[in-house]
Amino acid sequence: MSGRNAFYAQSGGVTSVINASAWGLIQGCRARPDTFGTVYAGREGIIGALDENLIDTSKFLDDTLEHLLWTPGGAFGSCRYKLKGIEQNRTEYERLIEVFDAHDIGYFFYNGGNDSMDTAHKVSLLASEMGYPLTCIGIPKTIDNDLAATDNCPGFGSVAKYVATSTAEAGYDIASMCGSSTKVFIMEVMGRHAGWIAAAAGLASERAEFPPHMILFPELTFDADDFLNEVDRCVADYGYCVVVASEGIAYADGTFVAESGVKDAFGHAQLGGVAPALAKLVGERTGHKYHYAIADYLQRSARHIASKTDLDQAIAVGEAAARYAAEGLQGVMPAIIRGDGDSYTWSIQPADLSDVANHEKFMPRDFITDNGYAITQAARDYLQPLIEGECFPPFKDGLPEYQRLDLERLVARKLAPRA
Amino acid sequence: MSGRNAFYAQSGGVTSVINASAWGLIQGCRARPDTFGTVYAGREGIIGALDENLIDTSKFLDDTLEHLLWTPGGAFGSCRYKLKGIEQNRTEYERLIEVFDAHDIGYFFYNGGNDSMDTAHKVSLLASEMGYPLTCIGIPKTIDNDLAATDNCPGFGSVAKYVATSTAEAGYDIASMCGSSTKVFIMEVMGRHAGWIAAAAGLASERAEFPPHMILFPELTFDADDFLNEVDRCVADYGYCVVVASEGIAYADGTFVAESGVKDAFGHAQLGGVAPALAKLVGERTGHKYHYAIADYLQRSARHIASKTDLDQAIAVGEAAARYAAEGLQGVMPAIIRGDGDSYTWSIQPADLSDVANHEKFMPRDFITDNGYAITQAARDYLQPLIEGECFPPFKDGLPEYQRLDLERLVARKLAPRA
Repeated sequence: MSGRNAFYAQSGGVTSVINASAWGLIQGCRARPDTFGTVYAGREGIIGALDENLIDTSKFLDDTLEHLLWTPGGAFGSCRYKLKGIEQNRTEYERLIEVFDAHDIGYFFYNGGNDSMDTAHKVSLLASEMGYPLTCIGIPKTIDNDLAATDNCPGFGSVAKYVATSTAEAGYDIASMCGSSTKVFIMEVMGRHAGWIAAAAGLASERAEFPPHMILFPELTFDADDFLNEVDRCVADYGYCVVVASEGIAYADGTFVAESGVKDAFGHAQLGGVAPALAKLVGERTGHKYHYAIADYLQRSARHIASKTDLDQAIAVGEAAARYAAEGLQGVMPAIIRGDGDSYTWSIQPADLSDVANHEKFMPRDFITDNGYAITQAARDYLQPLIEGECFPPFKDGLPEYQRLDLERLVARKLAPRA
Repeated sequence: MSGRNAFYAQSGGVTSVINASAWGLIQGCRARPDTFGTVYAGREGIIGALDENLIDTSKFLDDTLEHLLWTPGGAFGSCRYKLKGIEQNRTEYERLIEVFDAHDIGYFFYNGGNDSMDTAHKVSLLASEMGYPLTCIGIPKTIDNDLAATDNCPGFGSVAKYVATSTAEAGYDIASMCGSSTKVFIMEVMGRHAGWIAAAAGLASERAEFPPHMILFPELTFDADDFLNEVDRCVADYGYCVVVASEGIAYADGTFVAESGVKDAFGHAQLGGVAPALAKLVGERTGHKYHYAIADYLQRSARHIASKTDLDQAIAVGEAAARYAAEGLQGVMPAIIRGDGDSYTWSIQPADLSDVANHEKFMPRDFITDNGYAITQAARDYLQPLIEGECFPPFKDGLPEYQRLDLERLVARKLAPRA
């Protein structure tokens, strides 16, 4: 006898290993046919549920699904779409339950960050209130590493490895030419409120004279004069200055250095261009020749340089989600727990969604040096294991052998379109 | 008996495999002790010769030098410094010869692009005129792939592999979210006059609906209206549009789309910011949500995703340079010659520096599709073998095990400082 069906959705900004979590979940469900029927994936995440655009993952053979382990992006589509509070938009939650009911969906797996854990939590509350039996499990995912209740987030280790590697590489480039060419190089990385990604660049060097010479964290106030003084000092002492800047750094009055005035669907300010803004400052106030790079989506899709630790954890949280649901847990998220020993170990344990939802985890102050521009040994000890290990994708004709799933044939709809 | 000493210098923008050419040359010289004495490298390229800052490469053991095979940047330092014409600045050429004479240097190996091949050619002419016996050999290097007389340039294959891989990866990211998020993504790559690097992005997709959807080549005139129409068409047809833009694209009147007004030491306009300029156009004229990335130095230092073909060729031109010098050739550069067969083969043959110097090789028009926004099968056939093969560096603690050479102890000077 087969169990009830499951619904899986990818949410928010994708990562280079989010598909590995999907793979872990689907395998975890396939291994428990008494508990789980078909695993449906939402076409474009939660919008796929609202629009009744469901992908039947049982149509995919194992050797097709295997590509999820090394293909970046969101294989089923993701979205930037936040369900409002139940009071403001009860209809949307009811529509979700209606679609779930029409397809005998008894399990809701939501793979995302803070906002998604909040949504999963709310859906579980409403289903219970409506008397609809629904197991809601969150699966952590965010490159920002800012989720509470988990030691780190799947997706972060790989972007950390990319940023540290790229900073090291660009550093070698600039060091070799700074005598007659670029003296200041600025690399902009993601991180709206939390500086974890920028911090990871610090792993590229354990000595002050090696790049990156300065890291700009959104947790600290940006002071242009202090920044320029330190740039000058680095150029004087080392011949050049490599700066890694979080997109979210802001002045004392709260203005983002890179504010563009545009807001996304979650109401967050759309940032971009902190590197050109800093470069302009450097050029005008110091006269040093500069260059800048903006990694943008490259950093979060760079599956070719993903961390093996990150990949393993992404798979593990997917598998654990299926196991928790089978064990009858409700409203939880598999969290990564770091072991106490000297060498890095980790395990997966359930955390309550209510403890995760809408809490952002920032860099602790003692992870940042007193001058505010580098990471401490405590930060290194935390960050280093997360970038450990390589897991290159297979290559064909010189390029990674990524593969698109065929998402065109959706499950037949049973309901009228939503209003 | 030991032969006369050699001088090696890295010139201009560095690549992820220029050090592999240095390794090939040094090994080639070490293998011929009857011909070559010590190989000195210039600290910061040709400036090292002018300032008599010489690095004695015989001090480095083989297992230290081996790191040159996988460390990006210019291990001995490079520079942006172009010797003027002999008529304008004969003193500088004479100083070079003076330094060479003081250190019994009979071989000059110059590892660079167009400007450097020109300099090597001029030095060989002047040495001959002055009656100073000096063998001058160029070693090709440039990510731009614009050198004449060689089928391709060491350094290009690796940046091509990086750009194609990154475009593919970012494409997966954007495809998964375009329904509710970014619709237009622009990646800016290097390429001042020649579009080879941008063209390489085209290898990421063989079908029009897959990214990149548009490539902007500096060989063609940029037409904003036509560009925006095509962006709109892609968004309508595919849901999103991935654009790869050469930094050097220009309007019909010759104005660079990204002109910043600053010139470098070679008198070339310093470009930067074509991506934000295009993004601004897209935002203002189409209203589509956009993101952009600027790969900048990341692309030319990304040794972690270097092409094995490129690495092999970089080593081979270094080794061939030593061999040519030993064989008594003068004023030549080892060129890469493509075999005629269906499958890719290559060999190294000498090309006259006078045939290489100051000629730029552009993308042939038949490598670009009629609409001007994609590459043809002829371009694919040319480009694909150059990104073939992987040669990951060794990793330690999660990062590539790059290493700096100790360049502090220079050879004792024998001359007074130059005026």
